[in-house]
Amino acid sequence: MTVELINTGAELLLGRTLNRHQQWLCRRLSDLGYEVIRQVTVADVAGAICDAVRESLGRADVVMTTGGLGPTSDDLTRQSVAAMLGRPLHPDPAVLAHIQAVFQRLNRSLPDMVRVQALVPEGAEVLPNPVGTAPGLALVVDPNPYRAGQRRSLLIMLPGPPRELHPMFDGAVVPLLARVLGQTEPYVCRTLRTTGVPESLVEKRIGAPLAPMVREGLDLGYCARPGEVDVRLSARGSRAQALVSGAFEVVREALSSFIYTDQEEELEEVLIRLLTERRLTLALAESCSGGLIAHRLTDVPGASQVFLAGMVTYSNPAKHQWLGVSETILREHGAVSAPVARAMAEGVRRAAGADLGLAVTGIAGPGGGTEAKPVGTVFLAVAWEQGMEVVERHHPWDRATFKQVTSQQALELVRRHLLGLPMNEKPPQAA
Amino acid sequence: MTVELINTGAELLLGRTLNRHQQWLCRRLSDLGYEVIRQVTVADVAGAICDAVRESLGRADVVMTTGGLGPTSDDLTRQSVAAMLGRPLHPDPAVLAHIQAVFQRLNRSLPDMVRVQALVPEGAEVLPNPVGTAPGLALVVDPNPYRAGQRRSLLIMLPGPPRELHPMFDGAVVPLLARVLGQTEPYVCRTLRTTGVPESLVEKRIGAPLAPMVREGLDLGYCARPGEVDVRLSARGSRAQALVSGAFEVVREALSSFIYTDQEEELEEVLIRLLTERRLTLALAESCSGGLIAHRLTDVPGASQVFLAGMVTYSNPAKHQWLGVSETILREHGAVSAPVARAMAEGVRRAAGADLGLAVTGIAGPGGGTEAKPVGTVFLAVAWEQGMEVVERHHPWDRATFKQVTSQQALELVRRHLLGLPMNEKPPQAA
Repeated sequence: MTVELINTGAELLLGRTLNRHQQWLCRRLSDLGYEVIRQVTVADVAGAICDAVRESLGRADVVMTTGGLGPTSDDLTRQSVAAMLGRPLHPDPAVLAHIQAVFQRLNRSLPDMVRVQALVPEGAEVLPNPVGTAPGLALVVDPNPYRAGQRRSLLIMLPGPPRELHPMFDGAVVPLLARVLGQTEPYVCRTLRTTGVPESLVEKRIGAPLAPMVREGLDLGYCARPGEVDVRLSARGSRAQALVSGAFEVVREALSSFIYTDQEEELEEVLIRLLTERRLTLALAESCSGGLIAHRLTDVPGASQVFLAGMVTYSNPAKHQWLGVSETILREHGAVSAPVARAMAEGVRRAAGADLGLAVTGIAGPGGGTEAKPVGTVFLAVAWEQGMEVVERHHPWDRATFKQVTSQQALELVRRHLLGLPMNEKPPQAA
Repeated sequence: MTVELINTGAELLLGRTLNRHQQWLCRRLSDLGYEVIRQVTVADVAGAICDAVRESLGRADVVMTTGGLGPTSDDLTRQSVAAMLGRPLHPDPAVLAHIQAVFQRLNRSLPDMVRVQALVPEGAEVLPNPVGTAPGLALVVDPNPYRAGQRRSLLIMLPGPPRELHPMFDGAVVPLLARVLGQTEPYVCRTLRTTGVPESLVEKRIGAPLAPMVREGLDLGYCARPGEVDVRLSARGSRAQALVSGAFEVVREALSSFIYTDQEEELEEVLIRLLTERRLTLALAESCSGGLIAHRLTDVPGASQVFLAGMVTYSNPAKHQWLGVSETILREHGAVSAPVARAMAEGVRRAAGADLGLAVTGIAGPGGGTEAKPVGTVFLAVAWEQGMEVVERHHPWDRATFKQVTSQQALELVRRHLLGLPMNEKPPQAA
């Protein structure tokens, strides 16, 4: 079953609003087994909306629109689509009563312009809006003049506000799809998230062993972000579960310790979970990462149980006075050095009374580099009661990427320590 | 000049990734005076990519694609578009040398599959990628067999990773557009960024006085994000400058001290600039904001000159030992209280030897609230040599929004202190 999604709104094409509907609806639909084959954004212009709907009706089993059902002058979807399909609009008494009740509850009189939301195209089904006034509308276009063989398509128009769209999708659209279209093909999707292996190496390592499964219908996708690469395995049909499980084992074998999760979670969530399970506490001394590691950790609910404290010690005096890094070490090795990283990790561990100390010191740039220590040089250290480990890395990238990759490696360093994995493990080479 | 944007990537249609390119590119393009008339997402499938490119070439002056230029097997844009347009691919020695240099700098050997990124379609212009390996590609399709009258279109293929796409757009695409397409219609856009005034109040205050200018062609837009509202004033044509300047004065008068910038800069940039100009230093003690304030400040190049140090003191012992907050105050008033916020601000100022101390303590949730201090309660304090000020706020929102709004208000507190503005100024009411 194929779906096309049409988002309307000038603010989307002016770049003033992020399109969150795409991700939300695509994810829901693909998890239900539907295949979204295209997403389109057009402005609130009758001609553009009709063009997009007509084209999508020519390709997909389901066409879904968002937005344009409200009461203002730029809400045009209902009227223009009804006119295009030759379906006259009639006021629906039940919808009007619902709208009146909403306004009564808000103790406000009903403006005339709001009544347009009670108009329903002939033959359309009303999708109730429990939290707003504009209902959704569904139409079976059959015969469908825009599609080869006049094959029918299901057209669903949904309101724009997320707080109205989300409950309407779950409460009305999901049952409607099942009722009109019947059972979907089974769909299975699993994602393994890795860090420490470049994208090209990931593919080199798993591309060949997975090739036979890809020929059998496995969909293999990569998504690289600073400091990490996701491997996405998915398949449809009766063999989906077997194909994805088989591929999952291949990837797990090949990338083993570089996979930090096979659940839909971030590295910081993995770390807070591991620390919580082991009843261990963490303290943090950040220089070049400037608070980003603390920010990521404290985004996780419950972080305060295991993350005791963090320091952002940009200046040498702060490193000395707050963390007890000796002025001799600072002078002899420089603030960006392995001895200083070690002293920071141990210093913050002691100062906070934590089980683990994590420290980062480096040169984020654009200024501050030297020939011996160019911009992008960073030392990461983890200290625990019985020991300490430090690694050196080079990330000669822009400031934001440098911070992101550094924070990723710092969290990974702790994950490796907690799981007893080697800190400087070499990424796997081609099979 | 019309533009259509095509984003490729199965992860977008599977709802696994949020499409941030749409907003970023649409915003840049509309600010430059181009009109984005449609945005399309298709999967990494040669047929779907070619269909979308062909259709867009039939409608728009500029067609821009993102993604699909990397080295893995699901990177298909370069090859499939070149084949569709009948342009053979040739290896480009300069691009290959650049790729080799990147790998050399990373101290890694060059995998064969990466070489595909040096292939350039015949007649295409290479857009350099200063931070990655895959260059962008630009082609003038002239004659354009897909468009009425064979009118030419400019086709631009850009890489998917934002850290590569953003500098390439600013550095290579903007000059290319001007060179190939010439002058766009005069377009003027100014944005005033405010904090501390709810969106509905902003509109109430400026909507009526700006109404006559809107009738003359002023485009007035609002963009509300957690803790801030942008007012966007824009216009096209010969009167654009006059209209926008007039409206600008109206907004500046109406919202005065709540406007933190009329440049395209973030509040943290404003703050680092103000501190630098005044040769003042800042230290930071964060509890509930968990490092986000330090992270925002250290995103600004040069922050290390004025931002001495930050502490993330989640636990009471850390507040006591590191910041010198007395155990009596902590016991009597609780960690989330005005006296503790004050003691933290003064404590971190002294500990770091800074001119200003900024402190935040609150309950981010979802747990931790009480009847007297519900989730969302936060105290913010700023301390300087001769004094101290503390404010109380309530943000009963989700954890991420709470942190964002809190960080915004903390930075604003320092801005107001530096400019001698009252800390608890009441937002302006309707005119």
